[in-house]
Amino acid sequence: MRYEEFTIEGRNAVLEAFRAGKTIDKLYVLKGCQDGPIQSIVREAKKGDTIINFVEKERLDQISTTGRHQGVIANAAAYEYAEVDDILAAAEAKGEAPFLILLDGIEDPHNLGAIIRTANQAGAHGIIIPKRRAVGLTAVVAKTSAGAINYTPVAKVTNLVRTMEDLKKKGIWFVCADMDGDVMYRVNMTGPIGLVIGNEGNGVSRLVREACDMTACIPMKGDVDSLNASVATGILAYEIVRQRGLQK
Amino acid sequence: MRYEEFTIEGRNAVLEAFRAGKTIDKLYVLKGCQDGPIQSIVREAKKGDTIINFVEKERLDQISTTGRHQGVIANAAAYEYAEVDDILAAAEAKGEAPFLILLDGIEDPHNLGAIIRTANQAGAHGIIIPKRRAVGLTAVVAKTSAGAINYTPVAKVTNLVRTMEDLKKKGIWFVCADMDGDVMYRVNMTGPIGLVIGNEGNGVSRLVREACDMTACIPMKGDVDSLNASVATGILAYEIVRQRGLQK
Repeated sequence: MRYEEFTIEGRNAVLEAFRAGKTIDKLYVLKGCQDGPIQSIVREAKKGDTIINFVEKERLDQISTTGRHQGVIANAAAYEYAEVDDILAAAEAKGEAPFLILLDGIEDPHNLGAIIRTANQAGAHGIIIPKRRAVGLTAVVAKTSAGAINYTPVAKVTNLVRTMEDLKKKGIWFVCADMDGDVMYRVNMTGPIGLVIGNEGNGVSRLVREACDMTACIPMKGDVDSLNASVATGILAYEIVRQRGLQK
Repeated sequence: MRYEEFTIEGRNAVLEAFRAGKTIDKLYVLKGCQDGPIQSIVREAKKGDTIINFVEKERLDQISTTGRHQGVIANAAAYEYAEVDDILAAAEAKGEAPFLILLDGIEDPHNLGAIIRTANQAGAHGIIIPKRRAVGLTAVVAKTSAGAINYTPVAKVTNLVRTMEDLKKKGIWFVCADMDGDVMYRVNMTGPIGLVIGNEGNGVSRLVREACDMTACIPMKGDVDSLNASVATGILAYEIVRQRGLQK
């Protein structure tokens, strides 16, 4: 995984980025603009399943840092994404039951960075995030991960539920972090597992929750609603570490 | 605990704040300025053990948001601090063994906020922070705590080691979070306890570490140095919750 620039502006630069195989997280295109170069860019974006936002000129001017966007701005991933299969291969290479962390819509880059750091320390083999409505591997995430982004692979998938269904066929069980779940100490999380953490405000979405095999909650004694998402991930991930350690 | 303004500028406003008994975290005074009002302010600051920084005019201009600082700017706590005895009284009122979290120099307000939130959920009775080289109860901390700042008391003390010595006499044991410590699952943390967490970069300082009765580490399997401070606090605090739960 190597570091790349984050915002790419202008027709040639953006088209070049696509053709070089860079991972573009988001593309902003001037609304109503339909000339040849823009059409080529949009075509490339659709090939790679990049999210395209058609926006007004004012919005582009706002996002632009160079002031020369020519009607198109791309957000490139600061780091390269892995494939889900790479993560499974890493577990197999270590001779360990897979331990994945799935993030259903984490939006705060500080949370994603801290979760990558935690995943690395807890011995998780990788993280899976969805393409939409979630922060990607930006420069802030890389920094907050304290270097862990270089070791712990992050895969980005189009449909989290479909990925879960595929992984279930490979013997992985999914446990959903849910305040109404069973107390985590009493949920068996020792086998091949995917820990599913929800969005900061809304938790795990309905379809993803329904695709899970178990739910687990952190006992809450407090007066407020919930824990910070990266703290909750750390507590649940280390309950998995504890349970797996007891087995040995 | 009530919300207050964060920066107070100008001689009258600052003197007024001191006389009204507001908690001033830090005071910035123009270097070399020795007239009557400034002397009164410095005298008030010393009474309350406020940290005074004598700085150049350029620095004051930088900090100032109103542009009318008249040589003096005070940082007031966004929230009121509690006393250590209030925290012990809260534990007693609940009929529980005291569970305190001591932060030896947390600097990032997002970490302090997340830790207050975690303390609240884990059922800790309060947090103790040192006066120097640590972030106080600022507006960012309040926001990041997601409301927990209104429920979980935070005490600020001049000397963390002296406070620990006092608390030891009351039967509280201190466990130091330390990467070279005993694995947390094997450290008995069921009694009256103070969990000591160090600074983000440097960990727990030598004197505070030496004042601890036990050390505990989170098992680390990763390639990077450590965990985020608020995540580490969450994992250790919940190990205490787990151990206490097993006793019942």
